[in-house]
Amino acid sequence: MNDIEISQNAEMLPIQEIAQQAGFNEKTVEPYGRYKAKIDIFAEDEEAAQLGKLVLVTSINPTPAGEGKSTVTVGLGDALNEMTGSAMVALREPSQGPVMGMKGGATGGGYSQVVPMDEINLHFTGDMHALTAANNTLAALIDNHIQQGNQLNIDPRTIVWRRCLDINDRALRNIVIGMGGRFSGVPREDHFDITVASELMAILCLAESLTDLKKRINRILIAKNYAGEPIFVRDLKVGGAITALLKDALKPNLVQTLGHTPALIHGGPFANIAHGCNSVLATKTALKHADYTITEAGFGADLGAEKFLDIKTPVLGKEPDAIVIVATVRALKYNGGAKLADLQNEDLVALEKGFVNLQRHIKNMQRYQVPVVISINHFTSDTDQEIAELKQLVEQTGVQAVVTDAWAKGGAGCKELAQAVITATDTNSDVTMQPLYDVAAPIQDKVKAIVQKMYGGAEVQYSATALKKIKECEQNGWDKLPICMAKTQYSFTDDPKQLGAPTGFTMHVNDINIRLGAGFLVVLTGKVLTMPGLPKQPAALNIDVNDKGEITGLF
Amino acid sequence: MNDIEISQNAEMLPIQEIAQQAGFNEKTVEPYGRYKAKIDIFAEDEEAAQLGKLVLVTSINPTPAGEGKSTVTVGLGDALNEMTGSAMVALREPSQGPVMGMKGGATGGGYSQVVPMDEINLHFTGDMHALTAANNTLAALIDNHIQQGNQLNIDPRTIVWRRCLDINDRALRNIVIGMGGRFSGVPREDHFDITVASELMAILCLAESLTDLKKRINRILIAKNYAGEPIFVRDLKVGGAITALLKDALKPNLVQTLGHTPALIHGGPFANIAHGCNSVLATKTALKHADYTITEAGFGADLGAEKFLDIKTPVLGKEPDAIVIVATVRALKYNGGAKLADLQNEDLVALEKGFVNLQRHIKNMQRYQVPVVISINHFTSDTDQEIAELKQLVEQTGVQAVVTDAWAKGGAGCKELAQAVITATDTNSDVTMQPLYDVAAPIQDKVKAIVQKMYGGAEVQYSATALKKIKECEQNGWDKLPICMAKTQYSFTDDPKQLGAPTGFTMHVNDINIRLGAGFLVVLTGKVLTMPGLPKQPAALNIDVNDKGEITGLF
Repeated sequence: MNDIEISQNAEMLPIQEIAQQAGFNEKTVEPYGRYKAKIDIFAEDEEAAQLGKLVLVTSINPTPAGEGKSTVTVGLGDALNEMTGSAMVALREPSQGPVMGMKGGATGGGYSQVVPMDEINLHFTGDMHALTAANNTLAALIDNHIQQGNQLNIDPRTIVWRRCLDINDRALRNIVIGMGGRFSGVPREDHFDITVASELMAILCLAESLTDLKKRINRILIAKNYAGEPIFVRDLKVGGAITALLKDALKPNLVQTLGHTPALIHGGPFANIAHGCNSVLATKTALKHADYTITEAGFGADLGAEKFLDIKTPVLGKEPDAIVIVATVRALKYNGGAKLADLQNEDLVALEKGFVNLQRHIKNMQRYQVPVVISINHFTSDTDQEIAELKQLVEQTGVQAVVTDAWAKGGAGCKELAQAVITATDTNSDVTMQPLYDVAAPIQDKVKAIVQKMYGGAEVQYSATALKKIKECEQNGWDKLPICMAKTQYSFTDDPKQLGAPTGFTMHVNDINIRLGAGFLVVLTGKVLTMPGLPKQPAALNIDVNDKGEITGLF
Repeated sequence: MNDIEISQNAEMLPIQEIAQQAGFNEKTVEPYGRYKAKIDIFAEDEEAAQLGKLVLVTSINPTPAGEGKSTVTVGLGDALNEMTGSAMVALREPSQGPVMGMKGGATGGGYSQVVPMDEINLHFTGDMHALTAANNTLAALIDNHIQQGNQLNIDPRTIVWRRCLDINDRALRNIVIGMGGRFSGVPREDHFDITVASELMAILCLAESLTDLKKRINRILIAKNYAGEPIFVRDLKVGGAITALLKDALKPNLVQTLGHTPALIHGGPFANIAHGCNSVLATKTALKHADYTITEAGFGADLGAEKFLDIKTPVLGKEPDAIVIVATVRALKYNGGAKLADLQNEDLVALEKGFVNLQRHIKNMQRYQVPVVISINHFTSDTDQEIAELKQLVEQTGVQAVVTDAWAKGGAGCKELAQAVITATDTNSDVTMQPLYDVAAPIQDKVKAIVQKMYGGAEVQYSATALKKIKECEQNGWDKLPICMAKTQYSFTDDPKQLGAPTGFTMHVNDINIRLGAGFLVVLTGKVLTMPGLPKQPAALNIDVNDKGEITGLF
């Protein structure tokens, strides 16, 4: 069976039962259909609940070989839930845009999935649509302000607030709007991003309450006036309306895994131009209700985990008690120079050579003083010798390596990992996490810290544009913010072809995006596409639905 | 109290209780929060249920004075439900776009509202968002097809499929897309409409099943190739994917009135470039479960009721058993030449003069051989003499007139109307409705029938473009479709300033939109704006939300 068949054949429990098992007060559970719910955390009685243990799942640099990070996250959740009776997973919600383009969802795979996967991938509880609506309402209000007399004196050439759609639509990347005469707006250049790239998504995922959400929305930088002064959402006086459009989207979504473990799936910002983690509110809600919360970060540990630890953790106010790094024999062989077509053949040389990638991620994560466990996620082509070799290589670094088989066996394939995680979290009670940099340091010092300590690079070169933006940040007092690196996920460097663990390289910073609502500075290295395109044979060609509403061909 | 305060202070029953009262099988009820549900009609056991009585509520031509058609529909529903124990209202769902622009919702008013009104007006169960996503996914697939080699040889200058957003955004009316070089699409002119103007909305409201929905989507005309031949959605092979995105949107939404009457709120196409009625599936679902279904049509009877009777009724397969025409003293005085500022003053002369508008609507509706009842909807400034005069004027035409007070008294203010409706529907068992025109007749004959019999006009003049389109329809066999007139709602003519009941005028047809998916031809008279703009002081400025998620300033 493929993923959607496994998902559609699953016996799901009513979401009220899952909610009860998770300890949610019945009055806070707002069902969306039979197997999805929103948790109305704003209706929850404020009690200083003790927080459970937090487990962060991350991985080596992603490769076309596949690592299975989400699959391990879900499988580990099922294993921990079965062993302790109190575990919850907290994941990102998938973007609908890519579903019509490339095969492959974001809900795990095989017997480690969150369900109902078709509904989670299509519309879900409407969060993405609410973000699209809020984002574009703000855009319409900006253009309407200019059309109606432009009291704020906004310079249309400086507007940085873009429109968005949750669709892969390259034709909307660069557009001209406001054509057709004086009744149809002021002509200007504009751009559509995919919704998950909107600053509103990052804001939703970092907001601590509706009040905080509104505060963050009000401080979004949208443009400059003709005098060069910044214009914020609060100047338009529409922060309340935009927040109102997001009042339900801010509530975490509850679903279940195939093993009936409660899963909070909420928020899914890009992991390059944003921080790539699920929402602070969902993670905190899980921590309040479960002894073990298992969450994941986007891309590899150099991007995803770094941002989880340096951007999300300070807002969450709770550091991970253990970090799991997912690696596969196949991906490490690929890092070691093996060709994609040869990965099913045993190749101990390539494995050992590629191990340097995992090794650096281990070192990087250990720098934070959080216990690390390695998940060697099993693929059918792996040989016993390869697995044994990799296990040995890891254990030479003093870290425990556990073989997992999340795809084929679900929670049962992650029991040993769960045991290792329990042990690791028990040993962590006394140590405090060490952040990578001091957030109050100058921008260039913070970037240097990430490049040198996390990436293994030597130097950072800035474009003239980037240097100008840094100056602007310093002059406006926007420099005391964490750094959100936008870098290729495939390499420690800014060149996606440099695999393994390169050293001594130079990072090139092209530009800096100022995201005052999210509360970070996006440091752009290389080109980042914020509106994907569809492939020549889009997945949409295979998708169908019958008269009962059953979808086929989704994955 | 204003509308939102009345709504927020209402004691709502859990939606499961409403569903049970309405006789829905529990397994078909998919809750969306506590007070909204979708009815999974595809899971319902097929039984040849007997259909209840259908009551269509329409009105005179709308004026700035306000008529209260939705308010009477809801109040009548409450009255019939209280008196018979088995009534349901079936309404259109509101567009979110205007909510941020002008004050005023589409959920009734005062004590005749459907609730929760804030949620119905914002996001609701996501139908509009699903339509937006489906519409724009299709647009992206068209542009992607051209970008990826254009196998179908689509001429980009002929694409009639537009993008859409459920937002008032005039700057997107006329745009240029695909700029920025060869990796970002093929440049062409494009346009965004508001979502309710999308052909998909009309299709959703006329589809009889998921299979029918897919069939209709597949036959949508999207463009021509360079040889001038039509290109349909089926040529792109994405009808299944677009239908899949709408599988939940096709399920009717259940909410309740303030009087706890079940209300199916589903679909809301424009009443000018589309047919302006709620969905066939919702109306049929109500008819299967209630003795009395009360529904309404958009704008005045010349547009809304005509389209209900000549476009929707044949698909529904059930004609109305009674038609209620809503009129007010104020609106008729306005039609009789009184100024808006003077409407609170008694003016029997203007009332008598303006009565011709109602008189023609009565005659028009009687032509269909369906019993007609007039609702004189009471406003506080109406004098007793005005009411008596209007009642007498109506009754001279042989039709019953009943005073209603839906806004201030809810169902209690509509009891007499309910009794009149019950009587009227009981007398209707033997007569068969007479359609206005034969759908198989030539296009120009059908248009002439509407203009002469319904509007009181003399002649129809066609532009060269319109004549060319008629020829194209005839050559392709697309001429045997019903006509959907796009005309100003304020007048029987194509000039919004010609109030009352003009005769002898000429209608000017500028163009014809071919809507093969919806299955009608849109005959355009005058300019129709399919993407509204925001006003100088948008309603968004007043909207806010507190930390509990309670919205203020919505209406």
